[in-house]
Amino acid sequence: MKLCDLGEDAFLEELQKRLPPSAPPVRIGIGDDAAALDLPAGESILVSSDSLVEGVHFTARSLPPRFIGRKAVAVNASDIAAMGGRPVAVLASLAARRDAEVDALLDLLMGLAGRAGELGASLVGGNLAASPGPLVVDVTILGVSQGRRVLTRKGAALGDGLFVSGRLGASAEGRRLIKERSGAGPGTIPSGSLTPAEECLRRHMDPEPRLELGAFLCRSGAATSCIDISDGLARDLARLCRASAVGAVLEEAALPIHEGVRVGEGEAGREPLASALAGGEDYELLFTVPDPRRLQDWENPDVALTRIGAVAESGSGIRLRARDGSERVLAAEGWDHFARSGLPAVSE
Amino acid sequence: MKLCDLGEDAFLEELQKRLPPSAPPVRIGIGDDAAALDLPAGESILVSSDSLVEGVHFTARSLPPRFIGRKAVAVNASDIAAMGGRPVAVLASLAARRDAEVDALLDLLMGLAGRAGELGASLVGGNLAASPGPLVVDVTILGVSQGRRVLTRKGAALGDGLFVSGRLGASAEGRRLIKERSGAGPGTIPSGSLTPAEECLRRHMDPEPRLELGAFLCRSGAATSCIDISDGLARDLARLCRASAVGAVLEEAALPIHEGVRVGEGEAGREPLASALAGGEDYELLFTVPDPRRLQDWENPDVALTRIGAVAESGSGIRLRARDGSERVLAAEGWDHFARSGLPAVSE
Repeated sequence: MKLCDLGEDAFLEELQKRLPPSAPPVRIGIGDDAAALDLPAGESILVSSDSLVEGVHFTARSLPPRFIGRKAVAVNASDIAAMGGRPVAVLASLAARRDAEVDALLDLLMGLAGRAGELGASLVGGNLAASPGPLVVDVTILGVSQGRRVLTRKGAALGDGLFVSGRLGASAEGRRLIKERSGAGPGTIPSGSLTPAEECLRRHMDPEPRLELGAFLCRSGAATSCIDISDGLARDLARLCRASAVGAVLEEAALPIHEGVRVGEGEAGREPLASALAGGEDYELLFTVPDPRRLQDWENPDVALTRIGAVAESGSGIRLRARDGSERVLAAEGWDHFARSGLPAVSE
Repeated sequence: MKLCDLGEDAFLEELQKRLPPSAPPVRIGIGDDAAALDLPAGESILVSSDSLVEGVHFTARSLPPRFIGRKAVAVNASDIAAMGGRPVAVLASLAARRDAEVDALLDLLMGLAGRAGELGASLVGGNLAASPGPLVVDVTILGVSQGRRVLTRKGAALGDGLFVSGRLGASAEGRRLIKERSGAGPGTIPSGSLTPAEECLRRHMDPEPRLELGAFLCRSGAATSCIDISDGLARDLARLCRASAVGAVLEEAALPIHEGVRVGEGEAGREPLASALAGGEDYELLFTVPDPRRLQDWENPDVALTRIGAVAESGSGIRLRARDGSERVLAAEGWDHFARSGLPAVSE
């Protein structure tokens, strides 16, 4: 069987079936946003890897080298955010062509190191390998947890409210805007007050991991489970539900769709709902909360928290309740790197 | 400038110049075999990344998937060995084609997880990304040090003896043997008593990181500096000398060249000295010792320790003393992934 016929999630399930169960010092192994290792002296280390591949996640024209590096750090930091930790170090492994331009690679790595510094981490190592293929930027991030406390995908319980941070679909809209410009991204991102479209470009090119929020949710004990939205709300919700052995109901009217997506709708006939559910690369946090009053201490007005539904029984699957009250079962289809169709799909 | 004109080491130097100096909790940043992070509770974490790229480090025919996985772990564990630590966890990031065979990838990852287990570590995470290019296997390894004690490349002092473990050139000979078979490696490795040629194949396909030795050198305080030999003795010695700001004299007659390389010499006209100096992928440890009596407690007869020279003043460079007593300056040329010539070179 080929990878594209099986898909990434099913592949990881096959792998997990074959691996021995985690044993100390591994507290959380494969299958969550990051792994957690307990060290004898009382600390826990969080660790996660994620790659950006030229031609898949970016092209030389869509993303300047500095932003490739910045994004590679941010998407990894998002996994640490989802576990409630703070990043301390990153390693960058590049597979590059022998005739790659040194200046571009240095820009990439300086962007990476600079972004790591903004997030409280240092670039401490990595590797440079020759490759006849596309540029592959693989980043590993190390974080520390708050004592031994971590947020995981597992823990959502029947009746918990389902919450999401920020606004959805912005990154997919940014990707679409770059495609419209024949695949050429802007060389930089305007600062100051941004239009909705500029905001979407920024969310796509230079995503913001929700570290402060993840730390708050972990410290306060407000959330019972958490995942970051990297492959679309529908697919990442399905992962959280699978890990927690629950179902969920999403309220269509409650979904906080980014206003830039609404603008794009008129221009390109794009369905904003599809962007929100399956656009991918939002890097917001999706989490479950038994008592919403415990979110009252969250005081960052730039990162809104929105209740978008509730946890339901396991057997009921994941359903979307439309504005007219009708419900449909939502397939857990986000952006699968290996799906034969390159398009995100929402099926009945 | 292109990467192949600059080379990997010079590229890393350029990068280091631009990065801010390491600050706590980073004790050792870019530039050694692994980075070291000090955690508040008193432990130190070692971390390192290394990749294997299809078409560069292996081909689908030269190395069965299980051995790709095993080797990817072993070469990373070798970096932890060189710092005197023990591995605890590995992460594996694969960039694979969408039509890659699931069974082959699972074999690879099970080989990787199995080898990690043999070395005391667990596979705890990773990532799977679609890539239109060759298979890239990027492994990050986490290790723990003995208290805060680590071995580094820095610390060699004038007059220290220069030592190497095991025998050199075996991996390069194994690579040559596979090339002779039209690039097809054996599907597995014979067990039991091996011929010298089989031993060379094993060292190439399934290298043995010197974890026990690294731990001994670190614990006993016998070594003042240490590096693993991944890119050839000449090049890795140059790295150690650069980090320690010293020179070195190698004794040609003392070099422990693997007997399989001597056999290969007659068959293929290969220069055994070149294999030993620049063959690469030996994954032995190269270390400096002020007082050789402190090595007397090393009791593993399968891993011989050989004195191959001495540390000299910085200005004298790295010299090779021939059997007739004449000396030549050895260029620090090992196997540079980005060198235009694919051949290891030893120049006058």
